[in-house]
Amino acid sequence: MNEIKALLFDVFGTLVDWRGSIAREARALLAPRGVAIDWEAFADAWRAEYQPAMEEVRSGRLPFSKLDALHRRNLDAILPRFGLDRLDEAARVELNLAWHRLDAWPDVAQGLARLRTKFRLAPCSNGNVSLMVDLARRNDFPWDAILGAEFARDYKPKPIVYLASAAAFDCTPAQTVMVAAHSSDLAAAAAAGLRTAFVARPDEHGPGKGEQRANVPVDVSVPSLIALADRLGCR
Amino acid sequence: MNEIKALLFDVFGTLVDWRGSIAREARALLAPRGVAIDWEAFADAWRAEYQPAMEEVRSGRLPFSKLDALHRRNLDAILPRFGLDRLDEAARVELNLAWHRLDAWPDVAQGLARLRTKFRLAPCSNGNVSLMVDLARRNDFPWDAILGAEFARDYKPKPIVYLASAAAFDCTPAQTVMVAAHSSDLAAAAAAGLRTAFVARPDEHGPGKGEQRANVPVDVSVPSLIALADRLGCR
Repeated sequence: MNEIKALLFDVFGTLVDWRGSIAREARALLAPRGVAIDWEAFADAWRAEYQPAMEEVRSGRLPFSKLDALHRRNLDAILPRFGLDRLDEAARVELNLAWHRLDAWPDVAQGLARLRTKFRLAPCSNGNVSLMVDLARRNDFPWDAILGAEFARDYKPKPIVYLASAAAFDCTPAQTVMVAAHSSDLAAAAAAGLRTAFVARPDEHGPGKGEQRANVPVDVSVPSLIALADRLGCR
Repeated sequence: MNEIKALLFDVFGTLVDWRGSIAREARALLAPRGVAIDWEAFADAWRAEYQPAMEEVRSGRLPFSKLDALHRRNLDAILPRFGLDRLDEAARVELNLAWHRLDAWPDVAQGLARLRTKFRLAPCSNGNVSLMVDLARRNDFPWDAILGAEFARDYKPKPIVYLASAAAFDCTPAQTVMVAAHSSDLAAAAAAGLRTAFVARPDEHGPGKGEQRANVPVDVSVPSLIALADRLGCR
């Protein structure tokens, strides 16, 4: 790993707790309106529409659209299942912005600050630029640039997303590490020639329901970004 | 200007002293090899090739290429004029990276830090992402994202560069201010619907040889980013 110059990060699940944050934000907005549902189930249902929506873009059936727009389509699709088909437009707009208010796992800000002393850092997420900007401001992510899907105008795991992000940093794929809590993301990055680091987020989908360990070969496997900074020699 | 949410910045000349920095870097690399030329004239000659090279891309005669690649073509073109046709490849590579080591005007880091408390900030430069990243690290520019030419895959003053940058921040053109020291840049931004702020850099091309004032209508005209922060109510 001596030639590494840049680190690219998956964000949803890897850096931020989307499930707990979406459940909290949905409750904060809807409970005062008398809504009482299983908030974690609501977060899970919303997230379950994520891959199918992006597949519309990856397959070419839909032109590239920001993830915010896909999140909104997906929200409209799931609201009836929770008895919320009559939720007004203003509330839907506000609820959709919940994805801009996700909280980081506790090791992330400190880990990124250490990693930045040696490497160029960017998210390589399917989230759009403005969403990444809001998460960075909220959680003190010290990005050098916002790369990923909107920059490449396609969605992971298409190889162009990883390759365009590495190239923006003037790095070859072999000089770039993809950091993620998901084996599928790392397998795609490795197939594109990147190095890979697995960060365990065992509670991503609820207690004990995240990936405990990578089920594909990876270059590094760590329990936190602090441990990754240690492994990569960052003070 | 009450609805402003984001500020986009021209970089070469507006935020950084390209002329003094390129002259310094060229001298530092070449003087030890016995080269004695007019270093400011060398910087001016290199910069003079800038617009014609981008015009090849804007016109569609050349596919989009990073500014680093255009800078290198331009360097190769001017070296013979300075008796440097035999400069070796390694020195050319190193010299081309001088554009990654430009120094900011003295008000910039403090001004941007204040402006960031109220607005989303990004460069909207013709410089590529890695060049912007290196200038940001060198000069403490607190960008939220790196937008501009490489993000839009075309060069200013084409409208798409301003419009794609505003859209990445989820802003309408009218919610976005283009900040520049060049009337031509501001005229193009205004034509695309953006608000405009002129920052005077009267010494950009040598003492007294920059634009002293805008020669097109602008929304704000200031002598520094500190003054811009004052005008926009940023502490």
